[in-house]
Amino acid sequence: MATISLPDVSALSVGILGGTGDQGRGLAYRFARAGHAVRIGSRSASRGTDAAAELAAMPGVAPGTVTGGDNGYACGADLVIVAVPWDGHGELVASLREPLSGKVVVDCVNPLGFDAHGPYPLRVTEGSAAQQAAALLPDSRVCAAFHHVSAALLADPEVDRVELDVLVLGEDRDAVGQVQALAARIPGMRGVYAGRLRNAGQVEALTANLIAINKRYKVHAGIRVTDL
Amino acid sequence: MATISLPDVSALSVGILGGTGDQGRGLAYRFARAGHAVRIGSRSASRGTDAAAELAAMPGVAPGTVTGGDNGYACGADLVIVAVPWDGHGELVASLREPLSGKVVVDCVNPLGFDAHGPYPLRVTEGSAAQQAAALLPDSRVCAAFHHVSAALLADPEVDRVELDVLVLGEDRDAVGQVQALAARIPGMRGVYAGRLRNAGQVEALTANLIAINKRYKVHAGIRVTDL
Repeated sequence: MATISLPDVSALSVGILGGTGDQGRGLAYRFARAGHAVRIGSRSASRGTDAAAELAAMPGVAPGTVTGGDNGYACGADLVIVAVPWDGHGELVASLREPLSGKVVVDCVNPLGFDAHGPYPLRVTEGSAAQQAAALLPDSRVCAAFHHVSAALLADPEVDRVELDVLVLGEDRDAVGQVQALAARIPGMRGVYAGRLRNAGQVEALTANLIAINKRYKVHAGIRVTDL
Repeated sequence: MATISLPDVSALSVGILGGTGDQGRGLAYRFARAGHAVRIGSRSASRGTDAAAELAAMPGVAPGTVTGGDNGYACGADLVIVAVPWDGHGELVASLREPLSGKVVVDCVNPLGFDAHGPYPLRVTEGSAAQQAAALLPDSRVCAAFHHVSAALLADPEVDRVELDVLVLGEDRDAVGQVQALAARIPGMRGVYAGRLRNAGQVEALTANLIAINKRYKVHAGIRVTDL
């Protein structure tokens, strides 16, 4: 692990599509706390602005670090994370093809259904949310990552370290390295390369298992890769 | 985690269908080393007998602990692990419906395809190998577990501890508890409940990601669940 060097991403700005949802807000908070300029995006520009103002007031966030607007505004960042609900994912991603052109786009969406027995994976025609995004964004460098991070832990200012590994998938080795390095900006996290996008579906779906674990054991489960 | 007590399974005998394959042999060795009576099963009774004799001669295995025969012989154990190749899985399991009746059956099969880009998950009509087994064995108590254990680590007598978590899935809480306890018989391992069988497919498929990790980082990767 130590022998594979990662790029310096400390100056990278991060945009979050769906930055007003739990997962998006949590990630935004952690990246802002790590010193990254963060652009919160939302369907409604005013909700994006409001969420940014809230985040800017949280412990450890330097003034001017977090700004907000609509999802198009978030696309102005160097790297853009897709953290929208699965319902509507394809439509939103397709609508942003132009502003996302040439960018590293990180999909962290988990296509899950819920019923009385809890969560279960939805069948996705393209194989995974990430593959759907890649199909809709042929001019972007699409990776998949940040599926298993607990929004509750991310958003809790008292939590200093988030101890888990982020599985990063993608075809573009340079983009994958940037995402791995970005994960490592959050204390306790490592970014681990875990295969090509055709192997993203099970990583997304594994979130259903983590939810089952959380329910049984009353925890905020993540995963660590052993022997690394 | 510590507050959920597991049954004492130290007297349980373990049968392994496909006990001559890498994963089956590795598990057989670890359970024999932990003091369990182990029955190795194979398509060919003589190959089952030969594999048992080899395992019996390995360090840490007490005399008389490992015996072998055909797959029907392995079904005579208290708990039976299915470690056969995915190709032919359904046929074999269906043929053993009678001898597996009433037993706890643990499926650890990973339905993967391989091409020039490495492994990828195969689509399974029933959703997963474990669900296929459950459909074919209506009178058995089918669980899924032991997907991510490295055969190389299991089979290496110099490895004292196998540091990873075994995700255990199933509908039958008592059976799941037995399998969790069985995993914990191997030093370093924990058995963690990770949902119902409908969430087994992604756990099986995640093996493709671990293979990708092994290739990139030159390791024998497994997973640990954090916050437990």
